[in-house]
Amino acid sequence: MQIQLLHELLDANEHYSETVHWGELTREPRRGYAVVTCMDARIVPTQMLGIEYGDANVLRNAGAVVTEDILRSLIVSHYLLGTNQALVVGHTDCGLQAFNDEQIADRIEAELGVSVPTRFLAFDDVDASVVGSVTRIRGCELLPRTYAASGFVYDVRTGRLRQVA
Amino acid sequence: MQIQLLHELLDANEHYSETVHWGELTREPRRGYAVVTCMDARIVPTQMLGIEYGDANVLRNAGAVVTEDILRSLIVSHYLLGTNQALVVGHTDCGLQAFNDEQIADRIEAELGVSVPTRFLAFDDVDASVVGSVTRIRGCELLPRTYAASGFVYDVRTGRLRQVA
Repeated sequence: MQIQLLHELLDANEHYSETVHWGELTREPRRGYAVVTCMDARIVPTQMLGIEYGDANVLRNAGAVVTEDILRSLIVSHYLLGTNQALVVGHTDCGLQAFNDEQIADRIEAELGVSVPTRFLAFDDVDASVVGSVTRIRGCELLPRTYAASGFVYDVRTGRLRQVA
Repeated sequence: MQIQLLHELLDANEHYSETVHWGELTREPRRGYAVVTCMDARIVPTQMLGIEYGDANVLRNAGAVVTEDILRSLIVSHYLLGTNQALVVGHTDCGLQAFNDEQIADRIEAELGVSVPTRFLAFDDVDASVVGSVTRIRGCELLPRTYAASGFVYDVRTGRLRQVA
């Protein structure tokens, strides 16, 4: 870890822990929902959706793609933490839309000299990707039929959400 | 999706998109790092670590466990978005420490009446879980040897981080 960066992050944490009033919130999200979104640095869920401290479970990976690991997390969120609905939020200008799996594999092979079988879950159309993710949540046999899911695309240039599922 | 909640979230988004000054940030995180943390509602990464808009890729799942999906995301983050270090941040009072895989499966079977083979990645010791996750990043053959990783446990009662790897 780069020492300068680490010091900055730990200083920020020190400041935070000294200035915040700590309540007695339990681990169950107060508003009973989960958000699945991308790891993109331009997405700040608290701002994008007005999520307050303690409101929601927030899940993030490359592409906001609902993978087995996201389903595992939503199942844990529902059964242990009481959430009963999820929003999936993809976004414009996503790295996984700009590059395809083959191009990602080529970059790795160029740098490391190894051949790469891994799938990176790149997609051509963010709307279709979000719809597919919402469909996977709705079809998940380990979530109850009453579990609700909807899908949005976030425009990183305007800050606006558009519903697609 | 519950309509009242949806309206609130979209209102918050409308307000955000109207009040924020939109720069021309590209998708590459400015500070070149990634954070892997839990979906827990009491974790707000921007506050916990002072992460500014555009600084870092943020990855979150149940337990802050480095799974195949998190490694996929870190690989994408490195090769497409230029990050070269990651912080893994587990936390106290995690649902995946409070319950084990068998108890989670029992809850699902009680509600749905189906038997559940899925592993939920519960753990006994959050320090050991974070150390294991950092070890998986360091051992990932698709990340370069120069890629750095460190691990922390966040105390949800005090807001403080403690380094464990």
